Amino acid sequence: MTQAIDALIEKIRETGCPVCVGLDPVIEYLPPGLPDFITFNKGLIDALEGLVPCVKPQIAMYERYGIPGITAYTETIAYAKSKGFTVIGDIKRGDIASTAAAYAEGHLGGGSRADFVTVNPFLGRDSVEPFIEVCRKNGKGIFVLVKTSNPGSADIQDLDVGGEKLYERVGSMVADWGAGLMGKYGYSSVGAVVGATWPEQAAALRKRMPHTFFLIPGYGAQGGKAEDIARCFDKDGLGGVVNSSRGIIAAWKKPEYAGADYRDAAREETLKMKADLGRFIHVR
Amino acid sequence: MTQAIDALIEKIRETGCPVCVGLDPVIEYLPPGLPDFITFNKGLIDALEGLVPCVKPQIAMYERYGIPGITAYTETIAYAKSKGFTVIGDIKRGDIASTAAAYAEGHLGGGSRADFVTVNPFLGRDSVEPFIEVCRKNGKGIFVLVKTSNPGSADIQDLDVGGEKLYERVGSMVADWGAGLMGKYGYSSVGAVVGATWPEQAAALRKRMPHTFFLIPGYGAQGGKAEDIARCFDKDGLGGVVNSSRGIIAAWKKPEYAGADYRDAAREETLKMKADLGRFIHVR
Repeated sequence: MTQAIDALIEKIRETGCPVCVGLDPVIEYLPPGLPDFITFNKGLIDALEGLVPCVKPQIAMYERYGIPGITAYTETIAYAKSKGFTVIGDIKRGDIASTAAAYAEGHLGGGSRADFVTVNPFLGRDSVEPFIEVCRKNGKGIFVLVKTSNPGSADIQDLDVGGEKLYERVGSMVADWGAGLMGKYGYSSVGAVVGATWPEQAAALRKRMPHTFFLIPGYGAQGGKAEDIARCFDKDGLGGVVNSSRGIIAAWKKPEYAGADYRDAAREETLKMKADLGRFIHVR
Repeated sequence: MTQAIDALIEKIRETGCPVCVGLDPVIEYLPPGLPDFITFNKGLIDALEGLVPCVKPQIAMYERYGIPGITAYTETIAYAKSKGFTVIGDIKRGDIASTAAAYAEGHLGGGSRADFVTVNPFLGRDSVEPFIEVCRKNGKGIFVLVKTSNPGSADIQDLDVGGEKLYERVGSMVADWGAGLMGKYGYSSVGAVVGATWPEQAAALRKRMPHTFFLIPGYGAQGGKAEDIARCFDKDGLGGVVNSSRGIIAAWKKPEYAGADYRDAAREETLKMKADLGRFIHVR
């Protein structure tokens, strides 16, 4: 079975664009006249087709609206997959094994579900293994939280655990967990979330886990810069996808796009981000 | 506004029973002829009315079935609340602040939503604060994962972080976060999840965080014993609720209940658990 990470890497090569667009709608991002999130998302997905390899819906933004929200989340995934995107469900689940198995089946189980989900490692190895099992069975992948982009990530993730930081220890665990799901391009379908806001830490993690693909949030508005992010990538311009959400999907609200269609604004901003990253990251 | 923890403590006193019943259905737990989870759950809730103070649906067991599952989760909460139970939504969410706010609104926002949810602290203080804000506004509460019941909890939670274990450090953080939501009985609406499977650790945590209420999973099948759990409780028999899921909701499958209604079996097992805990914990 094809490794999920190989399919993602091939799409990155086709597009030459290691960008993940976060589909995290809030009401204020909807242009006037647009009725709902799913219409908004479908417009974005159409506009980004062939331009970026993957999209990442953040389930919290849908879950907050209950059933209609979850319906939009599910439809967004199905639509993005039908258009050829790799879909990363940003769910950050983590629980004891029997419960983790239910989450894994629910979110990575069927063909119309996400290709990857994000996973919280706080409960330890036996809470992550059920996800890895489902990945193995279904050709899917996960990104495990290692060093998150928020300021508060320091509170726990940066604690010294005997000569190294907790995020380093977790990084080594993730590399270990991924050994059984290695793809043909040298990266595993068990990836890591590493915030663009922590360039030194990200560079150290890259050295520590050379076969782990990174999902990199925190670019742009949160402060992550292209030259820093480049340190997560290898000489072939591979090693991660850089996420941007608001900067792209709400680009139409910026003064320079006054009067423009939100889809055109999203496309323009994506091309700008591709060019910005392309100054330092050369995908081959 | 009444603190959520005060309402829970009053129900514990009324019932004399510090038990939380986990409504974590799987298909195999449904008695023959029962069509769905919501019918099953309503039967359990009716059978347990006045007997236990709270129920805890584990959202993963519903989420795995998509929209119909989430509908059953939502209806279960509304029905349990209509019958006077405190409802703990076991969601273990955790994310960066803006996302955490969406989760908090989604799960603790409205009157028909849960009274408490469980929260994963791996992303640090700024990921927990949005939940606390919503609790303050709506009279709700959270239980933060401190030391979970599974064997793998040792992998990260037990790491030494400079003279103490990570779960101890997190315990102190949780006690600190709860200071602003203290109820009138000496406990905060910011509680902690502490597994019954770790009696020494639980006893140490009780000393470290005397004003933090515990949600205690791992009783029975997972190995937690009443005499150990008692160390989490104060002289008035307060300090926590002990969760049991399968042992109660699937009791009808045990040989001794052959032919019995699943609701009667659940009630009997709950009474047994109450008696078992009552040997060591005397609620006043």
